[in-house]
Amino acid sequence: MADLELMRELTMTADTKIILLVMDGLGGLPREPGGPTELEFAQTPNLDKLAREGMIGLSIPIAHGITPGSGPGHLALLGYDPVKYLIGRGVLESVGIGLELTPDDVAARGNFCTVDENRVITDRRAGRIPTEKCAELVKMLKPIKLPGVEVIVEPVQDYRFALILRGKGLADKLSETDPQKTGRKPLPVNALDPEAQHTADLANEWIAQAREILKNERPANMVTLRGWAQEPGLPKFEDIYKLRAAAIAVYPMYKGLASLAGMTLIQGLHHLGEQVEALRANWNSYDFFFFHFKYTDSRGEDGNFEGKAAEIEKVDAVIPRILELVPDVLIVTGDHSTPAVWKAHSWHPVPTLLAARAPGLTRRNDVTGFGETECLKGALGQFQATDLMPLALSYAKRMNKFGA
Amino acid sequence: MADLELMRELTMTADTKIILLVMDGLGGLPREPGGPTELEFAQTPNLDKLAREGMIGLSIPIAHGITPGSGPGHLALLGYDPVKYLIGRGVLESVGIGLELTPDDVAARGNFCTVDENRVITDRRAGRIPTEKCAELVKMLKPIKLPGVEVIVEPVQDYRFALILRGKGLADKLSETDPQKTGRKPLPVNALDPEAQHTADLANEWIAQAREILKNERPANMVTLRGWAQEPGLPKFEDIYKLRAAAIAVYPMYKGLASLAGMTLIQGLHHLGEQVEALRANWNSYDFFFFHFKYTDSRGEDGNFEGKAAEIEKVDAVIPRILELVPDVLIVTGDHSTPAVWKAHSWHPVPTLLAARAPGLTRRNDVTGFGETECLKGALGQFQATDLMPLALSYAKRMNKFGA
Repeated sequence: MADLELMRELTMTADTKIILLVMDGLGGLPREPGGPTELEFAQTPNLDKLAREGMIGLSIPIAHGITPGSGPGHLALLGYDPVKYLIGRGVLESVGIGLELTPDDVAARGNFCTVDENRVITDRRAGRIPTEKCAELVKMLKPIKLPGVEVIVEPVQDYRFALILRGKGLADKLSETDPQKTGRKPLPVNALDPEAQHTADLANEWIAQAREILKNERPANMVTLRGWAQEPGLPKFEDIYKLRAAAIAVYPMYKGLASLAGMTLIQGLHHLGEQVEALRANWNSYDFFFFHFKYTDSRGEDGNFEGKAAEIEKVDAVIPRILELVPDVLIVTGDHSTPAVWKAHSWHPVPTLLAARAPGLTRRNDVTGFGETECLKGALGQFQATDLMPLALSYAKRMNKFGA
Repeated sequence: MADLELMRELTMTADTKIILLVMDGLGGLPREPGGPTELEFAQTPNLDKLAREGMIGLSIPIAHGITPGSGPGHLALLGYDPVKYLIGRGVLESVGIGLELTPDDVAARGNFCTVDENRVITDRRAGRIPTEKCAELVKMLKPIKLPGVEVIVEPVQDYRFALILRGKGLADKLSETDPQKTGRKPLPVNALDPEAQHTADLANEWIAQAREILKNERPANMVTLRGWAQEPGLPKFEDIYKLRAAAIAVYPMYKGLASLAGMTLIQGLHHLGEQVEALRANWNSYDFFFFHFKYTDSRGEDGNFEGKAAEIEKVDAVIPRILELVPDVLIVTGDHSTPAVWKAHSWHPVPTLLAARAPGLTRRNDVTGFGETECLKGALGQFQATDLMPLALSYAKRMNKFGA
């Protein structure tokens, strides 16, 4: 893997455009031994043609045998060492809804939940209250004051909100309050490092006040906090890659990640059709487009094999419309595998396709189409996901030679 | 990649011999989609047979997507981390012509060039004057004296010479004076780091005196200097690998590199035939032979697809004569790809062949011959070029087990 300092040295500006199309959790597994995976089961004539004409392979998000969360999976695709750059969920939620973080901030992801008269959690998601209700409750929490720090609390989606404590000397080595199971009481925030004690005290004070404010609400009469994190200071796309980058994503978390990498967020997108139109509308303003599609992962987590294949087919169907833009490099991949039979993220390498516009830059790739088994034979081989950005930039003619 | 400290621990002496045959820029690309690469187009019955009986794969010189210069590409083949060990062109040129560098030296690569009456460069290579003329001009420059340092200037080839400043406290963080284009004046040497200011002043003084000496010469009436560098301190082959190594190369730069790695340079070689005879003549005196062939890269840079294939065929034709020596390990590879369609170095993985004499040490390799597409199926897989030396040493039975 080329390190980011080397990338900063070698990259150059050019009049070329790159699309990184991420189908979340794309990698899959056969439903029955010897059978096709979700991607292989799906009818994907457009991706199959690109696989034959371009190059395919399998990307390893973190390391063999390591199952990535969405954060590390995406960081690797964007070229950041996911073991070096850890991004807490609190930061992702916050930046995903457009909050700008400063180095003085500690952010958490909050859930509204339901507790009984003994303060025992009966529903960790408060009946999945709608976003409107969430906003209403957050408004009630905004007046909470803490000594010496600014408190920012904003609704995210459904039962989720973001909490930011802003002030000098705060630290994010804090335990989570969600016991992860119903039938248990929320846990206190504990300092996992002595220097975080002051922040833990403030967080517990905020929770106590929130409980008091919410006590007569139903079903959302309590909160849990997790994913404590500070801004990770990622080197920015413009700086390391010389790319003006835009994120075309629907979900807050992926927008958050893109924002930390220095991408401009295209706002107001709700579904794939709008995303494709946003790509076209913004084509002339950026060099790099991070295009995120969530539902392959969702159906995988549901254990819905055919549903996941159907989502892949939806993406395949928009490929011609994307190709009309004539990108110099189009990458189609996932941030990790989410096999429907596993109903969760997994550690399996991820099918990856790289199609370059420049004629003659790709070697022969004797494959019939885009799928896990064919990817084993592809010209890209098996490679670290962090290698994708250097490859994309080289095929887009945006890299200088290293050394004399 | 095994680090060099580990190699130093694990390697042992043995009565076995290794040949590393580097066809510079060997890797290629198809001339037309789906067609053969240069190596696949070439008729290479001898290499094909070795591929079927030995093992093939694709080596990645630096990292996926990174295009190597010749220096880093070769360093990787010799087992040195090319990102850690940076070698400036000035050092390569100097050691390539047999100058021994000390830690007190700063070396530059010099070009004779032509300037008009306004000091604007009209030919960056002074009409590619012959080496004899170069030697004559260098003789005129030798009397230049600088305060407190020794000055060494020697002809290299054609319009190129090497300049070494030798003295305490010199530094190589210096800018180059070649503006890289005609129609511009040579640039001054600037210190890129405050500690290099004294060296910059000395270099500018040398240039001023050289200009005065050359002012009435035609076409070579001026010089440019670039590739400022100091000796990199590479661990030596004998020390880390327990190999007595010889370099069988024609071009100064590759001899320079081999010399920095501690190899003995076999001098006076001008073409492939002489190189093969030198290999045979020195067979009993060394354990390791770095055999460098330049013209595959040259034809690739020319954009001459069939010319590059023809150079590959020339190497194929001498393989039987090399095999008569019965090497324990013969590796055939390149330092990088130089596809004729791209007319430059590229980032594509490099076809690599390893043939071991020891019977039964290689796994089955279901390939038809030596070429990029077949290499995707080879037993070596895709691997870092720095892994080649450990592989070569193991197949030559020169490595101990790691750990109990």
